[in-house]
Amino acid sequence: MAEARRPYDIDSLTDVAFRLFAERGFDATSMDEIAKLAGITKASIYHHVPGKEALLRHGLERALGALFAVLDEPATRGGAPAARVEAIVTRVATVTMRMLPEVSVLFRVRGNSKTERDAMARRRAFDSAVAELVRAAQRNGEMRKDIDAALLTRLAFGMSNSVAEWYRPSGSIPAEQIARAIRGLLFEGAARV
Amino acid sequence: MAEARRPYDIDSLTDVAFRLFAERGFDATSMDEIAKLAGITKASIYHHVPGKEALLRHGLERALGALFAVLDEPATRGGAPAARVEAIVTRVATVTMRMLPEVSVLFRVRGNSKTERDAMARRRAFDSAVAELVRAAQRNGEMRKDIDAALLTRLAFGMSNSVAEWYRPSGSIPAEQIARAIRGLLFEGAARV
Repeated sequence: MAEARRPYDIDSLTDVAFRLFAERGFDATSMDEIAKLAGITKASIYHHVPGKEALLRHGLERALGALFAVLDEPATRGGAPAARVEAIVTRVATVTMRMLPEVSVLFRVRGNSKTERDAMARRRAFDSAVAELVRAAQRNGEMRKDIDAALLTRLAFGMSNSVAEWYRPSGSIPAEQIARAIRGLLFEGAARV
Repeated sequence: MAEARRPYDIDSLTDVAFRLFAERGFDATSMDEIAKLAGITKASIYHHVPGKEALLRHGLERALGALFAVLDEPATRGGAPAARVEAIVTRVATVTMRMLPEVSVLFRVRGNSKTERDAMARRRAFDSAVAELVRAAQRNGEMRKDIDAALLTRLAFGMSNSVAEWYRPSGSIPAEQIARAIRGLLFEGAARV
């Protein structure tokens, strides 16, 4: 089934490719299938992009750009460290749900190519920046100290990133409510409050 | 590099295959590579298993068997619902770290084949059983009621399952300490306690 026609460029072809990458995985998707879903011949798709890897890189850069942009928002840039961590985790969950195909593919890259390894390195840099904030919040007495900051950060994003596995825009629970649930669970816990 | 020689059977070949599936993904792994790592010719591997899909099914069944076995342990079978949920989440994290290749592949299946779809259906059944317990704990007043039980369960396993993405037995934090951190974060939260 062809997409609604748009000018073919790397952006529109990345949109199409990531629907397939997110659904069945990068390795299980062929350029043939991307061309078919875009409503373009396989020969002409190569006029617009050098190959599947370039589409992957372009979409992963979108996801990483959106994640790093979270660190530059007013609520995440200033204030007490714990409040900044709360804002970051909540915003990352929201970005994940808004850019579902790109972010869910990012979360699944295994390092099979230079593109994937570069993306993993940038994700690690992002996590390190947040772990540094968690450490500051622990020193301040705002967050529990009995869990290593890097471990706490990984587990927090583990929960938040997991929405990529099941969230659908058409689902019964709105994205803001899911993001609020993540923040509540992470900071207050599941026991009766 | 060949594995230490063991009799070739579906169990030992599944061990080898899942090291590759976990590292680079099922679709990116060929029977050639599995044969090579097992130290066996590609022709002879087919004397032992019908194909890659059979290896996948065998390993996924191991992972699902281990997860469902958690629901039959004394600490998860009886007692107050919230304590049972705590015990299940902690034990699932421990099983994940102990059966890392099988469980991490299970967590990444996308439904690309009947084998994958069957595994996803069993995971959903597992999650439903736990969500039922969460609901009971909410009714009892043991767990917070402002988050939908199915959502809370998904987010809890989102955190717990995420260890499959980064845990290494050689890492600096022991598995029991990670499992304790998951339980602490989920039930008490990250704010100062």
